[in-house]
Formats: sequence, structure tokens, C-alpha cells
Amino acid sequence: MKIYLDCYPCFLRQALSASRRAGGGEHQQLAVLKKTMTILDRLDTGANPPEIARLVHNAVKQEISSTDPYREAKLESTKQALTLLPDIRQLISNSENPIDTAIRLAIAGNIMDLGVVENFGDLKQTIGRVLVQPFAIDHTHKLKEMISSADHLLYLGDNAGETVFDRALIETIDIPVVYGVRGFPVLNDATRRDAVEAGIDTVATILSNGSDAPGTIVELCSNQFAEVFRKAPVVIAKGQGNYESLSTAGSHVFCLLQVKCPVIAEDIGASVGSIVCRRSAVSSSG
Amino acid sequence: MKIYLDCYPCFLRQALSASRRAGGGEHQQLAVLKKTMTILDRLDTGANPPEIARLVHNAVKQEISSTDPYREAKLESTKQALTLLPDIRQLISNSENPIDTAIRLAIAGNIMDLGVVENFGDLKQTIGRVLVQPFAIDHTHKLKEMISSADHLLYLGDNAGETVFDRALIETIDIPVVYGVRGFPVLNDATRRDAVEAGIDTVATILSNGSDAPGTIVELCSNQFAEVFRKAPVVIAKGQGNYESLSTAGSHVFCLLQVKCPVIAEDIGASVGSIVCRRSAVSSSG
Repeated sequence: MKIYLDCYPCFLRQALSASRRAGGGEHQQLAVLKKTMTILDRLDTGANPPEIARLVHNAVKQEISSTDPYREAKLESTKQALTLLPDIRQLISNSENPIDTAIRLAIAGNIMDLGVVENFGDLKQTIGRVLVQPFAIDHTHKLKEMISSADHLLYLGDNAGETVFDRALIETIDIPVVYGVRGFPVLNDATRRDAVEAGIDTVATILSNGSDAPGTIVELCSNQFAEVFRKAPVVIAKGQGNYESLSTAGSHVFCLLQVKCPVIAEDIGASVGSIVCRRSAVSSSG
Repeated sequence: MKIYLDCYPCFLRQALSASRRAGGGEHQQLAVLKKTMTILDRLDTGANPPEIARLVHNAVKQEISSTDPYREAKLESTKQALTLLPDIRQLISNSENPIDTAIRLAIAGNIMDLGVVENFGDLKQTIGRVLVQPFAIDHTHKLKEMISSADHLLYLGDNAGETVFDRALIETIDIPVVYGVRGFPVLNDATRRDAVEAGIDTVATILSNGSDAPGTIVELCSNQFAEVFRKAPVVIAKGQGNYESLSTAGSHVFCLLQVKCPVIAEDIGASVGSIVCRRSAVSSSG
């Protein structure tokens, strides 16, 4: 998915938010805003949002010298989600269709996105909503069919905390899972450390994608990750950043997300607040 | 009030919104975004938001050649408010304290601001809320006292549509009123034409301020307006733009507004959603 003009103001907002989380003073915040404007000014219009976001968040690191501005927020999110894990597991085990419930809960967890808002609100409310909300795009039937005939699955995580909901879904899936994480800290996206804190290492093999983009730009990932991605019989890709980078990455990819911004809403064809399980299209442009 | 860093993303958002209202294609919208980033990059940090906003909206006019992008929206707002005028008048005449009610209603009308959001929602709901909501800052007592001893009043309008609520307040005031309007179209701020459409000419003398800023930057106004402003025994200044430019313009100025953005909230010391009647401080910086 290419950048929309509405992303421009949003990148400035995100740059400012990250600068503050990194502890930057006003001069440093201004410097990051100026760098962000330079990035946006020189932009290739075919660029996709996670490509730009990595540049913006690198500007934060360069100007404010913080390696992980969202560290505290991520830890807090993971702790918060872990307190809900027993309830999440119970909802799944009590369900008539455990895998469907687990998929919905994994989508519920996608609310924990600090790229879009500063606070993602009440988790229990979100769970209650997503458990009963009709899908705006529902390719879960095909996803389940492909899982049932696959020998393993690649699961691309998104935000810290959301990882705990992913863990519950992975527990519900019978085949081995490789769990892809960001190679370096960016936004509140999960790295290996964050995934381990959520206990993902107890249910899956964690694999760093080697990249600092808040999404999965396969060309920017490590060779090892790229090979795993290409060979995976089925890929679950969580969240907006993965959708932005993988919406046309092939029919083995299924994006699970909540639509949280108007730009994604327009691109995907579902309103803000929607829940989506969408099989990606096939295109060379990614 | 000087610009805050949070205004940067907001100006890009506003530039994009105005470009679309002006009917600009995607290339023109991008050109306006780029001009806006150049404006922001070269900014004097002491600049105040309406100073910058006029440059941004001039960029829209230059790139898209539209003289009044908000013309249709303004006319619609005025029509909508005029349908409520009989109710507004009745609320005032039925009130135990007509002037207090009229002040509250004038503040209620300040919701009609298309600089902050694309749609300002339900007017009747806003009226209901503002009629009973406690003031976050309440200098109405002093305002009424100064009106009672003044021989005339300068009333600085803000948005089209809100003008109708202003008209009702002016009808409630016993002294002659000069109604200041923007000299040129900017955002959905009222010009002479918009004020006449709201019937302001039937209750006050309309005076253009000669400026294209969405606020009142006295140094950028016509000499005639500046003189009227200086000599006025009391000034009512409506809305955020007038607050941003007149918050320290002297103790004869009273800002009546709804707090609609976090930056104003921080500057004025009242939360978003608050209603305010605030006497300006005295300072040479405006």
C-alpha cells in the first residue's frame, strides 16, 4: 500500500509523540519535526508507510539518542495483557469454535497500537466488542483451511502486548509456528525481547526479521527471514503496519487487524473500527 | 500565544483539508503540503498560529486558485444556524438572566469551527450542553460590568454560522456594536458577506479588519480597524483564532470560546470541551 497524503500530518504527529517518549527536549523535538518534513518532502510517492516510518523513527534515535523510546510503554502493555491471559484462554476453551474465538481475540489485541493513538483504552471493552462484531472482510474460512493442510505457519507479530493475544491463538493452532518480530525497536512493535516477555518463546520459534520498519518490507529483511517468508505455506500478518507492507504479498498471507485510521479504511475498503481477516492479493509490488 | 510543536501536524492536516475543499487534485494537494512544510521549516518560533495559518491558506489559494474554499460550507453553516435563531431568541427572552444566556449561546455557536474538525456535529446538543456547563474560566461578571458603563462595543466574529449566535447576543446588548470580520476569506471565518448573510448588518455596524489571518493580528489589520480596536472601551473576541492572537492584548478584551484543541487547552489552562469567558492579560507582545 502506497502512502496517502493524509499520512503526512500523521507522520509529524507520530514523530512528535516518539520524540517525547524518547525524552527529547523542545529543541530536539523540533529537530525531529524538521527532519521528518525533509523526509516527507523528498519522498518517492510510491513509498509505503512503514518504509517512511522507519526513517522517521530513525530520526528520533539520531536526534535524541534513545534506542527504544517505547520500552516502558511496551513493558506496561505486555504486563497488562498478561493479566488477561487466563481469561483469554478460558474464553477460547469455553467456545464452541475455539479457533474462531482465538482469531477474534488476536484481532482484539491489535488495539494495543501506540502508532495511532497515545492510549488504546480499555482492553476488556475491546475484547467484548470484537468477540461479537461481524467481520468487515472475512477470509477466516480459507485461513483455517490452509492451516489445516500446512506443516507449519509463519506468524508476524505487531505490537507488544498484542503478543499475549497472539500467544493464545498460537496455543490453539496444532502446527509448529515461527513468530516473526521486528529486528530493531520501532514504535511499540514487538522485538524478540518483547515477544519473550509475553511468553511467545514457550509456544513458537521466535525469528527476528532483521529490519527496523514497523511492518514487513521483505526486501529490507534478513535473507534468513525472507526465505522463511517465501517458503511458509501460510502467513498470519498482524496489524496495520503489516497490512501496509503485505497487502499484495501473495495469497498465502492473511492480514488480521483492526482498522484504526481513515487511510487504512479507504485502502482496505472497511470503516474505522472494523475487524478484518483478509487474504492478500498477488502482485510483484508487495 | 506562540505556536506549539503540536500545531505542526495540525497545519498539515488543515492544509490538506483546505486544498480538498478548494477542489485541488492530488498533485495540487501535495504541492500545498510541500509549501506548508517549507513555511513550517522557516518559522520564527515566536510566530503565533493565525500568522502561520494565513500563510498556509494563501498557499492553498496560490496553488489551487480558489478565492474562498469554504464558501459553500460557510453558507450551509449560516443557513443551519438561522433555522435555530427563533429558538435561540426564545431561550434568551425566557431566561432569568438574558445576557448570561446570550453569552452562553454565543459560546455554544463557537463549535461551528471547521479549522479543528471536518464536521462540528449536532448544534442542538451543543446548545443544551453549553447552557448548563460550568465555565472553566469565568470573567463574565467583569465583562457585563464593563458593557454597562461603555458607550459602544467592538465584537470580533469568528466562524460563519456562529455569527447567528453572535447576532442574538448583540440584540441583547443595549449599546451600539461594531462587528469586526476578516478582511479576506480564510478557513470558514466570517467575512463581511458571511456576516450580512447572518443578518449582522441589522444589529451592528460591520467593519472589515482588512486582514487575511484567521484571528486578529492588529499589526496586520487596516489602520481604520486598528484605531477602532484601540479606542474600543470593551472588546468581545470570539473563538480560538482570536484567543491565539489576543490573549495578551489588554484588559479591555474578553475572549469567548469553546476549547477545541489540546494546544489551546494547555495554553489557556482548561481542558478540551471547556467553555471560557477570559479577560485578556496586558502585554506588548499581543
